[in-house]
Amino acid sequence: MKIKFMYGATAVLFCVSTLVLAQNFKYVDPMIGSEGLGNVFIGPSCPYGMSKPGPDNALHANSGYSTNDAKPIYGFSQVHVSGTGGGAKYGNVSVMPYSGNFDSIAQESLKSEEDIALGFYKVLLKKWGIETRITTSDRASIYQFNYQKNAEQAIKIDLGRYLDETDVKDGRETQQFVGSQVEVISNTEVRGYTKIRGGWNNGAAYTVYFTAVFNKPFTSFSTWKKQTFYPNQKTQVDDGSKTGVMLFFNASEGESINMKIGISFLSELKAKYNLENEIPHWDFNKVRTETEQKWEQILSRVSIDADATLENKTMFYTGLYHTMLMPVDRTGENPKWENNTPYYDDFYAIWDTFRSSSPLITLLDPKREIDIVNAMLQIYKRDGYLPDARSGNSNGRTQGGSNAEVVIADAFVKGLEGINYKLALEAMMKDAMFPPGGNEEKEGRGGLVDYNNLGYVSTNYVRSGNRTIEYAYNDFCLATVAKAIKRKGEYWRFINQSDNWENLWRDIEDNGSRGFIMPKDSQGKWVDSIQCNVSNGKINYVPYTPVAQDWPNCVCWWCGFFYEASSWEYSLSVPHDVAKVIEKSGGKLAFEKRLNTFFNKGFYNVANEPSFLTPNLYHWIGRPDLSSERIHKIIDENYDSSRDGIPGNDDSGAMSSWLAFHMMGLYPNAGQSYYLINTPYFKETNIHQTNGKDFTIRARNLSVKNRYIQSATLNGESFDKAFIEHQDIVNGGVLEFKMGNKSSKNWGVNVVPPSKSDK
Amino acid sequence: MKIKFMYGATAVLFCVSTLVLAQNFKYVDPMIGSEGLGNVFIGPSCPYGMSKPGPDNALHANSGYSTNDAKPIYGFSQVHVSGTGGGAKYGNVSVMPYSGNFDSIAQESLKSEEDIALGFYKVLLKKWGIETRITTSDRASIYQFNYQKNAEQAIKIDLGRYLDETDVKDGRETQQFVGSQVEVISNTEVRGYTKIRGGWNNGAAYTVYFTAVFNKPFTSFSTWKKQTFYPNQKTQVDDGSKTGVMLFFNASEGESINMKIGISFLSELKAKYNLENEIPHWDFNKVRTETEQKWEQILSRVSIDADATLENKTMFYTGLYHTMLMPVDRTGENPKWENNTPYYDDFYAIWDTFRSSSPLITLLDPKREIDIVNAMLQIYKRDGYLPDARSGNSNGRTQGGSNAEVVIADAFVKGLEGINYKLALEAMMKDAMFPPGGNEEKEGRGGLVDYNNLGYVSTNYVRSGNRTIEYAYNDFCLATVAKAIKRKGEYWRFINQSDNWENLWRDIEDNGSRGFIMPKDSQGKWVDSIQCNVSNGKINYVPYTPVAQDWPNCVCWWCGFFYEASSWEYSLSVPHDVAKVIEKSGGKLAFEKRLNTFFNKGFYNVANEPSFLTPNLYHWIGRPDLSSERIHKIIDENYDSSRDGIPGNDDSGAMSSWLAFHMMGLYPNAGQSYYLINTPYFKETNIHQTNGKDFTIRARNLSVKNRYIQSATLNGESFDKAFIEHQDIVNGGVLEFKMGNKSSKNWGVNVVPPSKSDK
Repeated sequence: MKIKFMYGATAVLFCVSTLVLAQNFKYVDPMIGSEGLGNVFIGPSCPYGMSKPGPDNALHANSGYSTNDAKPIYGFSQVHVSGTGGGAKYGNVSVMPYSGNFDSIAQESLKSEEDIALGFYKVLLKKWGIETRITTSDRASIYQFNYQKNAEQAIKIDLGRYLDETDVKDGRETQQFVGSQVEVISNTEVRGYTKIRGGWNNGAAYTVYFTAVFNKPFTSFSTWKKQTFYPNQKTQVDDGSKTGVMLFFNASEGESINMKIGISFLSELKAKYNLENEIPHWDFNKVRTETEQKWEQILSRVSIDADATLENKTMFYTGLYHTMLMPVDRTGENPKWENNTPYYDDFYAIWDTFRSSSPLITLLDPKREIDIVNAMLQIYKRDGYLPDARSGNSNGRTQGGSNAEVVIADAFVKGLEGINYKLALEAMMKDAMFPPGGNEEKEGRGGLVDYNNLGYVSTNYVRSGNRTIEYAYNDFCLATVAKAIKRKGEYWRFINQSDNWENLWRDIEDNGSRGFIMPKDSQGKWVDSIQCNVSNGKINYVPYTPVAQDWPNCVCWWCGFFYEASSWEYSLSVPHDVAKVIEKSGGKLAFEKRLNTFFNKGFYNVANEPSFLTPNLYHWIGRPDLSSERIHKIIDENYDSSRDGIPGNDDSGAMSSWLAFHMMGLYPNAGQSYYLINTPYFKETNIHQTNGKDFTIRARNLSVKNRYIQSATLNGESFDKAFIEHQDIVNGGVLEFKMGNKSSKNWGVNVVPPSKSDK
Repeated sequence: MKIKFMYGATAVLFCVSTLVLAQNFKYVDPMIGSEGLGNVFIGPSCPYGMSKPGPDNALHANSGYSTNDAKPIYGFSQVHVSGTGGGAKYGNVSVMPYSGNFDSIAQESLKSEEDIALGFYKVLLKKWGIETRITTSDRASIYQFNYQKNAEQAIKIDLGRYLDETDVKDGRETQQFVGSQVEVISNTEVRGYTKIRGGWNNGAAYTVYFTAVFNKPFTSFSTWKKQTFYPNQKTQVDDGSKTGVMLFFNASEGESINMKIGISFLSELKAKYNLENEIPHWDFNKVRTETEQKWEQILSRVSIDADATLENKTMFYTGLYHTMLMPVDRTGENPKWENNTPYYDDFYAIWDTFRSSSPLITLLDPKREIDIVNAMLQIYKRDGYLPDARSGNSNGRTQGGSNAEVVIADAFVKGLEGINYKLALEAMMKDAMFPPGGNEEKEGRGGLVDYNNLGYVSTNYVRSGNRTIEYAYNDFCLATVAKAIKRKGEYWRFINQSDNWENLWRDIEDNGSRGFIMPKDSQGKWVDSIQCNVSNGKINYVPYTPVAQDWPNCVCWWCGFFYEASSWEYSLSVPHDVAKVIEKSGGKLAFEKRLNTFFNKGFYNVANEPSFLTPNLYHWIGRPDLSSERIHKIIDENYDSSRDGIPGNDDSGAMSSWLAFHMMGLYPNAGQSYYLINTPYFKETNIHQTNGKDFTIRARNLSVKNRYIQSATLNGESFDKAFIEHQDIVNGGVLEFKMGNKSSKNWGVNVVPPSKSDK
């Protein structure tokens, strides 16, 4: 009776209720950003999931994947990253089912009939008619292989494959093979590992271990080393060669062969533990459902009103989804030090994610962000420096600042508890005080000796422009934490240093605007021209102007004055003192004109993170209406729910988090405690916080015409500012806008967001 | 007939011949240096052998071992280092046979009846009467356990043990447990690993994998994790806990249980490969004999006349033996990068070994030294800096200079081929140009910014005195290689910098001698006193004099002006410009007095490597007779063949190589192409070089009285210099001394060894 009751009417009601509340995951379309520049990972993954199994049909693509059906799949590998640029990483432990040509290690097939959803990937391998279905848990996956009737049933596990393989020994940003091994344990179990180094972050060797088990015994097998097969030889030991194993089955017609594969960065046994711990059964759909529910836990933190368009909901929830694919939770899987603290890897890169990804995680999943920050501190403690780009358990690559400091300050100002902020300050001070020596491209602050001696990084160092302005903001963040924990000496030193961006501010005019961050040599002289190309034995000098991009034509990609941008972009990237930039630009009117020029003349790069905040800068001249106009125009022209719907590398969800915030009508200034308020895309957004308190953003009468905020109330009281403190959200309540079809002359006009020079 | 002939008379003759020529290994006594400060490893090892199995009965001893029979053995672990000081390293995969008390993980027994020889260790574990015998190959060992009749037969393999374990989390120089796992494969096979970090060099985590096989099946087993036993549970997966396994046997009475154990730094499978590759049988004595023969290959490179005393032969051959225990050949075992080049680890430390160990290997085993230098270059290429101290696959700790540069220069001036000297110069330039940032204690040149700006390391940095003078010599070595490969710019820069030691030479008097390396601050002011202790709220300042040792009483061990010495020692440590030191000391007579004061007043520290060359400095004032007198006195008073026969930490064979060179009558000035000649301990020393050419050093009429070289000939021609070029040795020939009972007024008087300022 009792049991029956469990499955009776109430259960059905509960189930219905679940369906209504908890199906946001269905709005997620993993294919957004799979074409064009997005580079997103399209295979199944749990939130922050270590196991990211997916098809590889594009060796040099960052995601390993191309939608192009003309590109054959050569395997399904177990580890990927999402949205990255530069040289690829991972693509390890490549599994491939096949049916013929048993003499060849290489096996590939054109694909068709793909079916891709959150937590699920399906494809038909046309060559042999094998349908392959994949779903995953955190550290283990399950594969179903449905062969054609009467076809041979073979599966290869290839430990010699990885993304971005080239013949160039030690090629910059390329992955390099180190070693592998394989061992057949029984007629249903195989284990082994592959060890790779390099990739975009030039990381040390990392090892991906695996254990794979099968629901049917294989009847024969052949391991291989290099290009030679060794039938029935159970092991191939690591001697620096590529190895793998071919497994041959003899299942009955119509039966699918299922494989579970656990991975680990510690050992094959740990991989087996992960597999048995997470997937102790063979129920494919159960795994898929559990993964959907893990996502739903996060996605249901935000609910959107019923009037929202499917397109907007899809863009929004997919934005949340992309944000939380990385960094990857590898707690318990760190091969370098004790595993009794949280460990996250694949910060790829904090330079991209500090602005909006970390703040979005903090807003919706604060416990997670606490763990991430603690992992960063542990990385500092053990590896010597905070990470900027980190992947494969190695720090590596800094594009500009030491922006982990912004993440720490952001955690602090938003009240995240359970973080040792004294240790955090120590880590930040390490960045600010200790030049990384030969590791200037790896961690810490490159050009620090200049910065600390001259107050700016001189042209003796590459990327001296963006290094200087990023360090200045990093110093502001350092000062923020120093002040809070009552370290006055450090506070005064670094709050003063945070003005260092002014040392490169040159009062010149370009395209009708005044004042730009420009190169200066170590003697303090402005640099007017730069060496560019050598023709016929003559060195050319070309003028260096605010629109100049010296890379990659004059100098290498990493060798310009600004990383991946012009002075027009970076000169507006001073998040702690917009008021001073306005003043130096000639006041509010001149600044409004400058912003308009910036966007209208195409100096703005929608895909470049240093410009993430810029559309909001109208707020500081009392014109939040112009910010909203600009943001909506940018989104409407560049983002959509198509496969090409992300206008640049998603950069581990950075662009997606920027979009998601703006669709809610909020945008953080990371490292500071407030959000800028803009016209949302939804009439009502409910943030169901983990503290149990809901925060609602309601835009009454929002429509295509009524897109201007006329006035606002917070919990029923008048709210005239166009920015709101994080704590106001944490406290729960309702922020309600009255919308209209014209700009308001009052709302957000009189009190503008804070700047350092306000004080 | 033919076969019979092989075992007939001729074979016997051959055998006798072998016995005569090839039994030098019997002169090796691994126990020399096992008491007192020597810290040598006493267990079996191949030359440069990775597997160093031995008893552990002293947790905090560097060798894991004490001769004291009152200290119980708690296990036999597979990896050790020899002669080191500071915090201990290794002591991994602890194996212990036992017979009772099966409820306890801890098992220990007093020892007795030890029998220790090259390649062999035997002990009786008194508690249970178990005789344990060990011999080893390069990467695998074989153990024999002989239990008492009717006793239970148990063996534990403990992956939670390691040397220098403490309760202090992250204690300086202590090893820290990271993780382990164990897996029972069959009733004759077990595998697993232990992962440890830290130790003296504060290294990253290293993993020692093992596979052990037994000649009898165990009848039951129990794995454990933390303090809990899991009977019959085959695996304990790595979750950061200590694990291990107890194996229970039921062999017939009188049968011994034999274990073969392979180790690897790559994987358990590789450990198994090493085991099967090296010891494919169960013949204990065969392994022992093979190891003896591996040693004999090297030891027979030098033959000594028949008149030599057993004591002297024992000291000499044991000296060679100790020199070649490390660095360890781990080619094919590097977990961090490709294994297609030679890899050596446990440079522990080059600061100790560059002076005489590397030159001794170059003289007797040049191919080996080429591999070692190439491994160092690969370490530079992959890890960013040349090693100084390196252990557990991690650079870590520099005591003073970047002395790998001396090893490279020494290889170059001695004509070692097959080394990429362009790459070597690049590696040296990295040391000289790129400050190691936060890694000043790990690699490169700490205080480099000062050194390159001021011409000396100021008192803003610790160890600024010896850093300055060591960098100056390193610069000389850098210039040596730069000149040879025609890099004039670098040559001139660094040959000039090699005078930098003069910037700290202060013209003050102490104990009747003038001129000492003394501290200078960053403003260029001499520092006369240093802060020492704080009593009753008052800071004490004490004078800093040439005899002062500020460490460890005033400042920490690593924080003094000189590392482990006084100015008296270091001021004489300018190997490239002894003539200038003589001049600055007031000329030849003053310098002779200075040397006499140094030795007679006890400012000389026999155990400190910076003073290794000093007894030879009389050569530069034309008094090689005084050098020889001094050297023989030092040896006779400090070295012998007893267990306490090495007067300080053997430092990976540094002291032993110093002794061995001097017993032959040669001593290198590492980084330069000549050897100083002194009175040998043997009437005739034959160096059978690997190029097939013999070089003989003959001292006619050598006796206790006739201990002065009167004159010399090289290949029959008069040879008046008290130093000889390496090439003269390589060419083969005979260096013959006429000995007498008084100092010669002619030999070695007129032409003294070179100095930079000669030119």
